Amino acid sequence: MKKLLLIGIGTGNPEHVTLQAVRALNAADVVFLIDKGDAKAELVRVRRDICERTITGAQPRFVEAVDPERDRMPADYGVAVDDWHAARAELYEGLIAEHLGEDGCGAFLVWGDPSLYDSTIRIIDRIRARGRIAFDVEVIPGITSVQALAAGHRIALNGIGEPVTITTGRRLAEDLSGEGATVVMLDGRVDFAGLDPDLIIHWGAYLGTADELLVTGRLGDVAEVIRETRRAARLRHGWIMDIYRLSRPAT
Amino acid sequence: MKKLLLIGIGTGNPEHVTLQAVRALNAADVVFLIDKGDAKAELVRVRRDICERTITGAQPRFVEAVDPERDRMPADYGVAVDDWHAARAELYEGLIAEHLGEDGCGAFLVWGDPSLYDSTIRIIDRIRARGRIAFDVEVIPGITSVQALAAGHRIALNGIGEPVTITTGRRLAEDLSGEGATVVMLDGRVDFAGLDPDLIIHWGAYLGTADELLVTGRLGDVAEVIRETRRAARLRHGWIMDIYRLSRPAT
Repeated sequence: MKKLLLIGIGTGNPEHVTLQAVRALNAADVVFLIDKGDAKAELVRVRRDICERTITGAQPRFVEAVDPERDRMPADYGVAVDDWHAARAELYEGLIAEHLGEDGCGAFLVWGDPSLYDSTIRIIDRIRARGRIAFDVEVIPGITSVQALAAGHRIALNGIGEPVTITTGRRLAEDLSGEGATVVMLDGRVDFAGLDPDLIIHWGAYLGTADELLVTGRLGDVAEVIRETRRAARLRHGWIMDIYRLSRPAT
Repeated sequence: MKKLLLIGIGTGNPEHVTLQAVRALNAADVVFLIDKGDAKAELVRVRRDICERTITGAQPRFVEAVDPERDRMPADYGVAVDDWHAARAELYEGLIAEHLGEDGCGAFLVWGDPSLYDSTIRIIDRIRARGRIAFDVEVIPGITSVQALAAGHRIALNGIGEPVTITTGRRLAEDLSGEGATVVMLDGRVDFAGLDPDLIIHWGAYLGTADELLVTGRLGDVAEVIRETRRAARLRHGWIMDIYRLSRPAT
């Protein structure tokens, strides 16, 4: 039986990798490296680097591919995501069929943790549901940017006895109204438009790497610093991955 | 300057430890192992085992201590937690002063990740605020039971584009009303009283260990199975650590 390993590799610090991930990487015959069209050479390098550092025997075969384009301005968000997942399932199924032998073991390296705002698990479930290839799946958790943000700022994510909500930039307005702290991932704009200036923000970018940036303070006081830091960093690197936590000031 | 490392060590699988945690453990002169009064011999063993597996040079000095008792039936929850944290800050401050040399490096091993439902960061902040000993702090993130639950069930925590709320058993009733999935930690009862039987539950205990238990299904169908599994396992082990995710059925 074929085996697929979905391995969380953390957020860019090669030392985020767990011993379980190291063992899994060493078991893989083939490592699939799949990137968006705007291929980020730096991120490809980090994954290759992780494999070279941690695989003690022969290096696996690397299979690189480019994810299908996603409709970024869809009329219907749900339909657009579904179409995109279907196209990716087709691509991944083809790669598995082509590159993985009957008892082969293939690894997909996932930034952060496969369980949080990543669709690899859903894509693999789709392939299984299509029923054309049979395989076992194992998921290996990894350090997320949520955790790297908290570690960088040396804070707890939750207030004492309080909940934490993890959400996206798109949903921030709705989800901020609940109790407890809110962590916002995947916010392409980061303009903080309409937010209470008395909120406390903990912002971070390139977390876990040598380029890590951290800013914290009262939102009204630091919003412009964050926007400016972000703009400059994005220009310098050509890309940015950032995340922030919002909480109400202690009373 | 003294240095304190707050190291997340995952949820019981020694292979949850990251390479960053391994490096930190190897840098520590002293490892503080602090337990609740109901000391769980099995859990002490796991931490010793992690150190023995991963520390390549001389083993650090282990300093064991018992956390002060916490008032479990307080008249005022906030005051009780504050008193408990104050007592722990006093204890930890004494341990650091007694066991850590002027340039010493001490490690606190934290289950899961120091940023999620753990008070070590807050205790260390209190000690710093008291101003009697100076030290640097570094936080090393670790795999949480939330992630081990998702990996065990091979699921994403979030629905597509939806938020995830992480909360406690005590707050479940309030926090379940929001959008998206809810992950419940620290629920001492797990009776599911008053919950919608059409919710989908993913439950897990002893996650990441050889004793891992997983149950999933429609809450109304599996609630009794989970309660019974939990009761029997708790009796067998003498303790249980479990967690669950609730989500609305797909429409």
